[in-house]
Formats: sequence, structure tokens, C-alpha cells
Amino acid sequence: MQIAVVGLGRMGGNIVRRLERNGHTCVVYDKNSKAVDDLVSTGSTAASSIEDIAKHLTDRPRAVWVMLPAGQITQSTVETLGGLLESGDIIIDGGNSYYKDDIKRAKVLAEKGIHYVDVGTSGGVWGLDRGYCMMIGGDKVAVDHLDPIFKTLAPGRGDIPRTRNRENIPDHRAEEGYIHAGPVGSGHFVKMVHNGIEYGLMQAYAEGFDILKGKNSSDLKDDERYDLNLTDIAEVWRRGSVVSSWLLDLTASALAGSPNLEHFSGNVADSGEGRWTIEAAIEEAVPANVLSTALYTRFRSRQNHTFGEKILSAMRFGFGGHVELGESATSSPKDYKAAE
Amino acid sequence: MQIAVVGLGRMGGNIVRRLERNGHTCVVYDKNSKAVDDLVSTGSTAASSIEDIAKHLTDRPRAVWVMLPAGQITQSTVETLGGLLESGDIIIDGGNSYYKDDIKRAKVLAEKGIHYVDVGTSGGVWGLDRGYCMMIGGDKVAVDHLDPIFKTLAPGRGDIPRTRNRENIPDHRAEEGYIHAGPVGSGHFVKMVHNGIEYGLMQAYAEGFDILKGKNSSDLKDDERYDLNLTDIAEVWRRGSVVSSWLLDLTASALAGSPNLEHFSGNVADSGEGRWTIEAAIEEAVPANVLSTALYTRFRSRQNHTFGEKILSAMRFGFGGHVELGESATSSPKDYKAAE
Amino acid sequence: MQIAVVGLGRMGGNIVRRLERNGHTCVVYDKNSKAVDDLVSTGSTAASSIEDIAKHLTDRPRAVWVMLPAGQITQSTVETLGGLLESGDIIIDGGNSYYKDDIKRAKVLAEKGIHYVDVGTSGGVWGLDRGYCMMIGGDKVAVDHLDPIFKTLAPGRGDIPRTRNRENIPDHRAEEGYIHAGPVGSGHFVKMVHNGIEYGLMQAYAEGFDILKGKNSSDLKDDERYDLNLTDIAEVWRRGSVVSSWLLDLTASALAGSPNLEHFSGNVADSGEGRWTIEAAIEEAVPANVLSTALYTRFRSRQNHTFGEKILSAMRFGFGGHVELGESATSSPKDYKAAE
Amino acid sequence: MQIAVVGLGRMGGNIVRRLERNGHTCVVYDKNSKAVDDLVSTGSTAASSIEDIAKHLTDRPRAVWVMLPAGQITQSTVETLGGLLESGDIIIDGGNSYYKDDIKRAKVLAEKGIHYVDVGTSGGVWGLDRGYCMMIGGDKVAVDHLDPIFKTLAPGRGDIPRTRNRENIPDHRAEEGYIHAGPVGSGHFVKMVHNGIEYGLMQAYAEGFDILKGKNSSDLKDDERYDLNLTDIAEVWRRGSVVSSWLLDLTASALAGSPNLEHFSGNVADSGEGRWTIEAAIEEAVPANVLSTALYTRFRSRQNHTFGEKILSAMRFGFGGHVELGESATSSPKDYKAAE
Repeated sequence: MQIAVVGLGRMGGNIVRRLERNGHTCVVYDKNSKAVDDLVSTGSTAASSIEDIAKHLTDRPRAVWVMLPAGQITQSTVETLGGLLESGDIIIDGGNSYYKDDIKRAKVLAEKGIHYVDVGTSGGVWGLDRGYCMMIGGDKVAVDHLDPIFKTLAPGRGDIPRTRNRENIPDHRAEEGYIHAGPVGSGHFVKMVHNGIEYGLMQAYAEGFDILKGKNSSDLKDDERYDLNLTDIAEVWRRGSVVSSWLLDLTASALAGSPNLEHFSGNVADSGEGRWTIEAAIEEAVPANVLSTALYTRFRSRQNHTFGEKILSAMRFGFGGHVELGESATSSPKDYKAAE
Repeated sequence: MQIAVVGLGRMGGNIVRRLERNGHTCVVYDKNSKAVDDLVSTGSTAASSIEDIAKHLTDRPRAVWVMLPAGQITQSTVETLGGLLESGDIIIDGGNSYYKDDIKRAKVLAEKGIHYVDVGTSGGVWGLDRGYCMMIGGDKVAVDHLDPIFKTLAPGRGDIPRTRNRENIPDHRAEEGYIHAGPVGSGHFVKMVHNGIEYGLMQAYAEGFDILKGKNSSDLKDDERYDLNLTDIAEVWRRGSVVSSWLLDLTASALAGSPNLEHFSGNVADSGEGRWTIEAAIEEAVPANVLSTALYTRFRSRQNHTFGEKILSAMRFGFGGHVELGESATSSPKDYKAAE
Repeated sequence: MQIAVVGLGRMGGNIVRRLERNGHTCVVYDKNSKAVDDLVSTGSTAASSIEDIAKHLTDRPRAVWVMLPAGQITQSTVETLGGLLESGDIIIDGGNSYYKDDIKRAKVLAEKGIHYVDVGTSGGVWGLDRGYCMMIGGDKVAVDHLDPIFKTLAPGRGDIPRTRNRENIPDHRAEEGYIHAGPVGSGHFVKMVHNGIEYGLMQAYAEGFDILKGKNSSDLKDDERYDLNLTDIAEVWRRGSVVSSWLLDLTASALAGSPNLEHFSGNVADSGEGRWTIEAAIEEAVPANVLSTALYTRFRSRQNHTFGEKILSAMRFGFGGHVELGESATSSPKDYKAAE
Repeated sequence: MQIAVVGLGRMGGNIVRRLERNGHTCVVYDKNSKAVDDLVSTGSTAASSIEDIAKHLTDRPRAVWVMLPAGQITQSTVETLGGLLESGDIIIDGGNSYYKDDIKRAKVLAEKGIHYVDVGTSGGVWGLDRGYCMMIGGDKVAVDHLDPIFKTLAPGRGDIPRTRNRENIPDHRAEEGYIHAGPVGSGHFVKMVHNGIEYGLMQAYAEGFDILKGKNSSDLKDDERYDLNLTDIAEVWRRGSVVSSWLLDLTASALAGSPNLEHFSGNVADSGEGRWTIEAAIEEAVPANVLSTALYTRFRSRQNHTFGEKILSAMRFGFGGHVELGESATSSPKDYKAAE
């Protein structure tokens, strides 16, 4: 089928390629004309502006996939498209928008009868060959209409073993790598929680490797001190252990290349999705200690000291006039060991 | 080569089978004579008591693999074997002992020249066919001597893709699924941290699915409420997403069989290894928020209420004479929404 | 000076009484006419409706103190008052509004030249005699104009010892128990963080007393088991220890009345302010583990089991086909002890 | 009564002074002869060695108060005293020993009939005038015998208001500032949990002030940004608010002296007691998230980066070949705001 794609970065460009390789036709637009030209050379139709897109879309209803970095630019692009399209047409946001923004946008577009579909997309640069894992929110009629697109973009079953107990579940889309999660916003909501979980998983590995690394500390007793080979440990855990995962694969690669990770800063960025996940947990009154502390570790990693730590130092200094044995002593782990 | 195995439960029995299928010969002992008979019928040599084991071991040095539940029984078995074996012989503890106990045992045995090797073993009932992931601690001479045993028990490379950057690493044991982690105790130490990480990973998924489930709460605004299909979400994440893992595979199976998990109690047990991991973190002064909170969630899951929660209730009641607006109100999430 | 007070509950009524005892004159309104009559009998002027308030306020600028439960009713009352008052007049919100709502309200009122002042108020039923601790946000001109009101309502210095190092600080309002925190919203923001801290403090005591209580567990070794008298412990800590506080005083009272707290449910409510504090931390990228986990403990306290815990149970069951020694065993604390 | 004191540092010296001011007689010893001479000049009897102490103690049973920094030196002093004293005599450890060490020491001494009493002591340099808050463990006969000593050292009721509900509790020792907590070790156990709670309380304030401070961040919207006066906020909270405490008093002093705390490093030491509290929680299976995370914040405060953070950076770099929109972007809080 025919679809337009706005935003031809790493993700957008490869989405076009994967669609065209499989018989779909694409109208493409990007502010960067080089990105447009590259795709035209392999068969896409160029639009010279957002306004121009609508003219080139001959099928009805028209479908436009917006694949832009989250935030202001997605918002303005969707607004512009909303002015150009007509009742029954579909706008897809394949980026990382906040799901509450999806809900707002969809309400505005619904007044004109335009459908808004949000797609949380995972898969990155490898998606071209392997396909994209997609979580989709929006009206059933629009999502069903786009099914040929989603089916093409998804990875399909591949060689991943089938899940036990799924034999009797008639809807096979999840097994092909895409789901219609629910009403508008639910696609990005599911992707958001996915990223929240990702933070937690990463932090679990990080703490574990930190404990392995720290076992070499000179503060420990001699016969309880080990100089462990983290590279080999990450590797062996990939092979039949309970903690094997794609994130562990990444860790094993990183450690194989650089056992002490000296080139990595340890300043860890966070995107909106980890934060939004905590906000969702709080709105639902769901305890989310692991996901929260994973986020806070990233906050902390980007500072020399928090002001809170200075408050702690100041309180301890205040004890000077009310000294606590042990408490007042500037105790190093060595003191601690002695105290045992 | 020849080896004795004490403890023929699910793990021990299959270890014998996998060894014998690959040309090793085993002397076997268990208090449960049925378990012994089963293995004798397929070629093992029966020992009628722990004392009897030594007599049947003809190769030198002798090697005895102890595969018993952690704790008192492993301790006493190792002590008995220590009295029966001689300098150069090897005792292997393949269970889940605390690594500091390994260190103590090894010290006692070293006085007689007996080697003690600790093996953290992962792989369970599938290990018979797929092999066991092993983390090994102990003297190099003993671990090297046992290499044919470990090589046989390990899964080997199988079809798991090779880790990028490992090409230049000469020691291939990790890629075959076993490592010599270091001196005595280090095998169980690495396995212990492995289980600590496992708790953290499990809790990250648990919180994420809790947030997905809670999105159906009637306390939320109508258009921000979703009734999500967790079964499909777990499935789709297996297919190209960042959070794919063996633990996610298990979750997908469980949800496919029972979308609301109504048969599961939610009383979550914990073994010593999660606790010991926290103790190790504290000894090393390594922050381990995720691993700790994962453990605490299990503690909390087994109680109706903590006494601490009653303390909170009592304090709030105490506010009665010092009422805090909002604070004093018994606020439900609905109140919260209203308050916004 | 003259002021109107809308909302004559426990807080509002006592505010009127404290003001009138100290020479101010009050116009009062409440939907509950009994509350109005009580105050008229001691000298207040009754307003028969919100509209009626403006007529009775003869001083210029007019000042109306709104003292209602947070949320919808405060919002609508402020809107109504905004329609009745004139440029230069002042609306005070003494409740627990979300500070971002304050900012929105102030913007609307500013169009008419009306000032909006937010006051985070602490002190409860004891405030009548002891005074109210107040954190105030708003335009300087309005806050300064109301200073006689705040000075009267505040506790004053009383017998609380002066803080070391404050001698050279010229502004003494904080020492009298009220502060002008900054622009509109900042009063409620400071009060919000105050309540967030309160959650953290309460949880610290709760965990500590839980550990004291749990020291009586039959899972512990006999000579490491204590049956501690929590009532006496709370009391002795009030007397010269580092953890003495008003919250500890409350705890000591509660335990003196009921050493096992059997009448307290342990279902712990939370108000919006604990939640908003976490949202603020996340917006600022400030790590807030203690305040978050204190909130999550309350969420957890109101459930039998989280769905997350069922996920954990289900995963562990999944291990059945991939059994982990120790991990698979349903280990009680007794097992743990044995394992040591 | 007569008592010997070993260790005449800030705590030990003042304990002697407070005892002698109130009619007790003291035999004193310290390696530092200057400390001994100071006390002799005001009436104490000097012992020239630990061995010499026993000779100077004429009352029976003899009582020796050991007031040394925790650890090795306390252990060896107790051992030496154990060799010198006789059945019925009493050794008091007033330091910060680990309660499991108390239990071990008491067992050894009990073989000779010597009593061992552990005293968790709070009060510091101000204890001389104000008295010491004491938590005492040991045999009833020994603790009762020492009651005149404890009564003298304790603060007494002073002007602290009586706790509601205590009227009918016949034992008034807690109100005087000391308790007999239970068998040997329980005094130090209660003091240990006291310090654990202290960490949690401190961290709650630290996070709250961090959030107040961070409200000045340029990443926030202009009208939601406040430049708050933390000095005044700490002060006003001392006056009638729910979070008033002795620790808040210290914070208010520190901020009054240095509003930005620029002289404080933010490297926060920890003593053994915070760590032991977590170990106790884990042994009892009590969830202790706040106390744990308070400890971990101190661990983290003393490092530039954890190795765990480098693991996180490395994983994120690994995403390069599997780019996650938003996830891959190095997102600053500004990006986050935009994304909203």
C-alpha cells in the first residue's frame, strides 16, 4: 500500500527501505534533502514540503508516518498535517511521544475525523534487516487498515522459539512482533514502561558487576578478596544461566573490548520515558522502587555531589557538640572491619 | 575420567547421566537407595555409604562431587569425606554454599593436603541435555585436573552467537559455559551475585507489569485508562526489544497460560544468596539499591502488614491533635486526583 | 486589620479565633451555618454567601482567606471571589493546593490586578493556642500588607532555643514561625516538600521499630533473640538521643497506650503532597530514594498483594523446568539460617 | 558507689566527672597519663595499668566501665580484665561494640562468673551537664547493682514534657533516660538501630533540602523556578511543624552559618552501626528500604563514579547498533522538558 514518511533519519529511512523492499510505495519528506534524494534513487517519491505530501498521496484514506525526535517538532508537524488531511486519513507517530500528548493530539484531530495512531518502535538500525518490534495505540479501524504496513515492518516469527501455552491464542500478531495495545496513547504507554523496565534491568546488572569488581577491595580480608575476570563472567552467564538477556550480551561485548571500561564516563543520561514511567506508577499508586532507584542512579551519576550530601556532612559536623562514638569518627571501611 | 557423586537429586542424578553419556565413569551414593538403583541400572557403580565411596574410587587423585542442598548436610558430608580422603584428593561442592563456608572448609582440608573446589551450577533439569553453566573456585591444580569433567558438563558453544570483541581472548572456557573464577569460594561468590542480579531483574519486570496492569484503575481519568493485554505485551517484547531475556520468556509463558496469574500466591520466597549478595555489597561499600529493594519486596510479600506500617498508622493517628490538612484526611487515590 | 475567612472547619475556625483574640476583625462564611453562628457569638461578622463577603469588607485592599480542603472546591471558590473582588484586593489560599495550580490561578487573577497569596499552614488544632507555622508565597506588596495577620497567627519565638549562627540575620520572621518563601506557589511548594520529608522521617522510624520488633523472631538463634520493650525504647530516645523529634513523641505516646499497636490497621493513606514531592524531584533530576520508597511503602500497605508479586511467583514457578538449587527451594528464614 | 573507668577520652572523662560530682568514687586508667592526671587533680584515684585497677577497687563486686573506641582495643581490654576479675564482678562496655561480640564476650566471662554489661551511650560532650541517654543489656543482677551509676549518668526528667499514656507505667527509668533493654547485647543492639534510624532521618532531610535547592534549576520553566532561602525554611520548620527535631536544629544552625554549605565536602562517612542495622533487618526478613538507601547514599558519596555507572554507559553505547529513539539521544533535563 501507499504511505508517506516524514523524517528520514536512521529509523525513518530504514522504515521506508523495508517497506519498499516488500512492495509498498512511499512518499518521503525530510528537511535534509540529501536524505530524500537517497531514497528517491531507490524508488521513493519525493515531497518537497509537508504540504506537498498530501498531493502525492493518491490512495484513500491517506496515511502519513511521522518519525521525528520527540517533542516540539513532532507536535508542530502533526498540527500541520492535521490542517492538510481530511476525514478518514491517518497520522502515525512512530517516535517517543509522551502518551498524554498523544491523547491531546488525537482529540484535536478527531474533530476533523482524522485518525491518530501512536507506535512505540524498537529495533534501531538493525530493524531494516530484522524488523521492528512495535506497540500500537489508536482506533481499530485505522490500525486494521495499516496492518499490511505493520506486518511488513515487524520481524515476524524468525527463529525465536514459540512460547509455551500460546498454542490456543488466535491472534498471532504479538508472535510476529507487533501488537495493537489499545486506544490512542497505549502504544507509547507500553513502550514507555518497556524503557522503564530497561532502566531497572540495566541497574540490576550494574550493581551486580559493581559487587564483583569491588571484591578486589583492599579493605577486605585477604582470603575473602578476589580479583575476578568480569569479561569471562559476563560471557559464561550468557550460556545457560538465568540472567541471560540481550542487555547481558551488550555487557559481554563491552567488557570483552575493555575489561575496565576506562573509556566510559559513567555519566549516564536519561530520557523522558524513565521519568514518565515513575509518574505513571505514582498516579496508579503502584510501588516502583527498582524503576525509581534506577532513574535516581542516573541523576546522581551526573553530579559531583548532591546538595543533600553536603547537608549530611553539615549535620555530622553539628554532632561535634554532641559527639556520637563511632558516629563522630570519620570511619573508613577499614574502621568498620576493625569494629567487627 | 572417574568421579564420585554424592547426592542424586534432580541435579546430581542428571550430572551423573551427562558424565556417563560422555564416557566418564561414576561412583554414586544417596541416602535414598532408589536414586542409586536407577543410576546403577544405566551403568554407575553404587556406593553403600559415604565411607564406601573411597574404596570404589580407583583413579588417583580421587574426586568426589557433593551435590546436596546447602547448609548443615553439605558441611557434615564434606567433613566425613575429609576424614576418608588423602593428600591430593579433591572434594567438589556443586551446591549453593555460602562462599565464606567454602573458605573455612578449604582451610581445614588443606591441612591434610585435600583440595576443595566450589562450583556454582546453573542449568537445572534441562542441564542433562543442554549442559550446565558453571562458576568454579579453587586451586588451579585441582580445577585443571577436573577440566574433562567440567568440559563435559558445560553446554559448549551451541548456537549462541559469539560475543563481539572476544576473538582475541585465548581462554575459551567461558564461551563453552564454564569459568575458573579464582581461589576457593570465588565460584560460589560469582554464582551468589548471579542470583542477586536475578532478583533485581525479576523485580524490574514485576514492577513494569504492575504498572501496565494498574493502568486499568478506575481512579484514572477515562481517556488515560487502558485495559492492556499483558500476555501479548510480554510476547511482543520477546521479539526484537531491548528487554528480551530468558526471564521474560518465562513471564510470557506464565501469562499465556494464565493472564491474571490467579493461581499464583504472590508470597515470594527468598534463598540465602539474595541476602548474602547484600551483605557482600555492604562489606565492599558498594551501593546496591536495586538488589536490596528486590529482596525487601520478597520479605514484604510474605506478610499481611509489617509492624512498621502500624507505626505509620499510629503516628498519623497522633496527628489528630495536630492535624495536617490533606495529611490527616484518609486520602484515596481519588482524593489525590481531586486534589490535582 | 479586617479579613474575611471562607471555610470554618477546624483550621479556619481557629484561625478566626486567634485573629480576633488579638484585635483583628473577621468576616466569616461557611456552607455550614452552625460554624458561622459559633463565631458570630464571639464577635465575628457573618456573611450569608461568598458574594456577601465583599460587601462586609470595608477596608481596602480587601483580603479573603480561603481555608478549604484541597482541590475542586478551593478552585471554584477562588474563581468566584475573583469575579467579586477588585484590583489590589488579595485572595489567600491557606489549604494544601498543588503549587502549579497556584501559579495558574494567580495568572488569571493578575489580569484583574488581584493578588493571590498561597500559605502552607502547619499547626492543626493546637494552632489556636500555640500558633501556626506558615510558608507564604506571593507578591511582596500583598504579603507585606498581610504581615499583621501572619504575625498574629504565627507561634512567635516561645521557649524554643535560638539557632546558633542566626544572630546576624536581620529578618526575624522565620524565628517567629512564618516566612515569605518567594513568588506565588512557593509557599505551597515548601509545605509540599515539608510533607515529603515527613513521609521519609516516619518511614525511618517505622523501619527501625520493625527491626526492634522482629528481633523476637523464632527464626533467630536463641542467644541473639530479644523481646524488646518498644514503649520504653521510644521513651528513652526522647531524652537526649540524636533521633528525638516531635514524630518520636507521637510514637512514644502511641506505644505507651498500646505496645503492640493492635488497633492500628497498617493501611497507610497518602495525600497528594508526598506524590507531588517525587514529581518535583524528577523534574529537577534530584535523586530522592528515601522519599520515594516512603511513598511506595504506603501504596503497598493498602494491598494484599501487588500484581508484581504474582509475576515473581510465576517466574519462580517457571524455574521448575530449569530449577535453580536454593532458588527453587521454598526457603523460609529457617533455611537461610541453616544455609549459613 | 565505687567504679573503675578505663578510657578517659571525651566520653570517659566526662562520665568520671559526672559520677564524682554526684558522690561516686572512681578509679581511672588511660594510656595517656595526662588524661589520668587531670582527673586525679579533681579527686579520682589513678591506676597505673589495667592490672593495677583491680587492686584499687575495694568494694565488692568490683565494676569496671570500659569506654574505648569499638573494636580490637575493647576486645583485648575486656579479655585482660576477664583474667584479673573474679566471680560476681562486672565489666561494662560503654562503647559501640557489635552486639554479637558482646554475646561472645559474655559467654567467655560467664565461665568465671563475671558479668558483662553492654551500654549504648548517647549524649556526647554535653553529657557531662545534661546526662547520657543509655540503653543497657545484661544480667538483671548486674544491671540492678549498677543502678545508682546509671541513675546518676542519665539526664533525668528535665523539662521534657511527659508522654501521654505513660501515667500507668510503673518503671520510670525510661523517663529518666536509661533502660534495661534485655539480655547481654541488647543494649548495643538498641543503640545500633537508633543509629540506623538516624541515617534514615538525616537522608530524609537531605533529600528534601536537595529538592528545595534544585528548584532554582535553569531547566525549569521560568514561573516554576524559585530561589528559596533554605536557612529560613529550616528555621521556620523548627517552630510548630511536623518535621521539627534535634537533627533539624543542627541543620538550621549549619545553614545559618553557611547558606550554601560550601565548606562541607559531601563525602559522608559511615560507621559500623548503619551497616549492622541492615544485616539485622536481613536476618529478620524485615524490609528496610529507607535505612538501606540512606547507607548506600553515603557509600556513593565517597566515589567519583561507581563501576556500575560505567557498566550503564557501556550498555548505552552498545545500543549504537540497536538505537532506541530517545534512549540513544544524550538527553539533558532540557530535552526532557521539551519532550513533555
